Amino acid sequence: MADDPWQRAYDFAVQVARKAGAEIRKAGESEIRVMTKSSTVDLVTKTDERVEKIIIGSLKEEFGEGTHCFIGEESVAKGEPCILTDKPTWIIDPVDGTTNFVHGFPFVAVSIAFAVNKELEFGVIYSCLEDKMYKARKGKGAFCDEEPIQVSDVKDINKSIIISEHGTDRTKEKVTKIFSTMQKILCIPVHGLRGSGTAATNMCLVATGAVEAFFEIGIHCWDIAAGAVIVKEAGGILLDVDGGPFDLMSRRMVSANNDVIANRIIKEIEIFPAVRDDAPIQKK
Amino acid sequence: MADDPWQRAYDFAVQVARKAGAEIRKAGESEIRVMTKSSTVDLVTKTDERVEKIIIGSLKEEFGEGTHCFIGEESVAKGEPCILTDKPTWIIDPVDGTTNFVHGFPFVAVSIAFAVNKELEFGVIYSCLEDKMYKARKGKGAFCDEEPIQVSDVKDINKSIIISEHGTDRTKEKVTKIFSTMQKILCIPVHGLRGSGTAATNMCLVATGAVEAFFEIGIHCWDIAAGAVIVKEAGGILLDVDGGPFDLMSRRMVSANNDVIANRIIKEIEIFPAVRDDAPIQKK
Repeated sequence: MADDPWQRAYDFAVQVARKAGAEIRKAGESEIRVMTKSSTVDLVTKTDERVEKIIIGSLKEEFGEGTHCFIGEESVAKGEPCILTDKPTWIIDPVDGTTNFVHGFPFVAVSIAFAVNKELEFGVIYSCLEDKMYKARKGKGAFCDEEPIQVSDVKDINKSIIISEHGTDRTKEKVTKIFSTMQKILCIPVHGLRGSGTAATNMCLVATGAVEAFFEIGIHCWDIAAGAVIVKEAGGILLDVDGGPFDLMSRRMVSANNDVIANRIIKEIEIFPAVRDDAPIQKK
Repeated sequence: MADDPWQRAYDFAVQVARKAGAEIRKAGESEIRVMTKSSTVDLVTKTDERVEKIIIGSLKEEFGEGTHCFIGEESVAKGEPCILTDKPTWIIDPVDGTTNFVHGFPFVAVSIAFAVNKELEFGVIYSCLEDKMYKARKGKGAFCDEEPIQVSDVKDINKSIIISEHGTDRTKEKVTKIFSTMQKILCIPVHGLRGSGTAATNMCLVATGAVEAFFEIGIHCWDIAAGAVIVKEAGGILLDVDGGPFDLMSRRMVSANNDVIANRIIKEIEIFPAVRDDAPIQKK
């Protein structure tokens, strides 16, 4: 392999993300048919499935079926495995923010990441309603529309904005812990709490310095894989919610501009269990 | 007076909002000097004061000093009265979302409303980082960049997105009530909760149908006056948080797409006291 074996894949991912985003915008303009999955808060639209097929189809055509692996939100929902091996693996969320999409709330993103030997090589997030293309390759910096981006330099937690989400699970115990955590963080105090409704966009907001940190328990690897590369390459850090090392498949993450901010909010996070993405599949 | 006495004022307000927004964008690109007011969560920047001066200066020049009254966030902060009389009155928030502005979080708005005989005649909100111009005149519909906008037709609370804010007050009793209300609304359940960090933008999100409702206790008349016209003209409604009639000076508001959604969330709102905007000024 050459020095830079994945440049072509990276460039192609940007093209595919843009094509997928255009498809999402088009679908948003026509009638949106919502199909229920497990509950009213876990919306899946036809668009979601169609866009994932477009993305995986394009990638398979370009890189050959069989040599690359694919982990996609919709394929996993249909029972395909969600295990990261050493093989070149694409990790895809075709429409991050389906609830936003259905409502026309302005944050909807295509998220495409690529890992080799279990290490993330690059990430691409296309915020398709804002028409902003975020991307980063390991060791080569992070960009929004070709402009370099950088995390905020704020170290004083009292001057920070923290972003999180309520998730789609409405189990009382989880919701209570989520709200309790948010309330404690707000009262540190911080400047404010925000939530865009998509993990991918939230991570881009960390990467551009608009917020200091984003944390969540319950997110999936496809929500955060691309964002993880972008945040790191923008100078930020990733940790587990208990302060340990970040684990892409653990469904727990703190992404922040620096370790001072990350560790301060970690102190307040009330952890609740989340089944790992790579746990053996249970029959439903 | 002619049939349409305030058309010129309306058109002028749009121009002034755009000019003010350009000033805010320019300031965001240069260094932002933050001055503390009462706490770290109540940011006021030099921009805030400068932009209000630009807006009020332009309006006074156009409409003659003395004949029109002005209620502006910064002027009131400096001790000028905040009382709505029958006179033609401009109600101005030069930079709604100062915290967002300081952080580069993408929702920052200029809000300009105009009332005569204590009734709102028109409202203009310029979301200056998104470059979106929202406007509405009583009886003439609501628009975003000249396109008519309309609230969502969702009547099923379980299919709604509700937007609210944590405010800038960190008093334990208030914060606890705010979080308790949000948790109860989330668990009705609704599709999701969001928060953009600016009341003006939140009301535009109601008006365009991206969310079904926005409520808050503690907002000021300048945060919501323009939005009130825009929401109404987009087909929505305004109520007090106790279900009674909306009162611009009460610092309490529910804005929603319809009364079904409004009344359902009103059931969950835990009310806490807020001193009226037009209460006699207390020496600090």
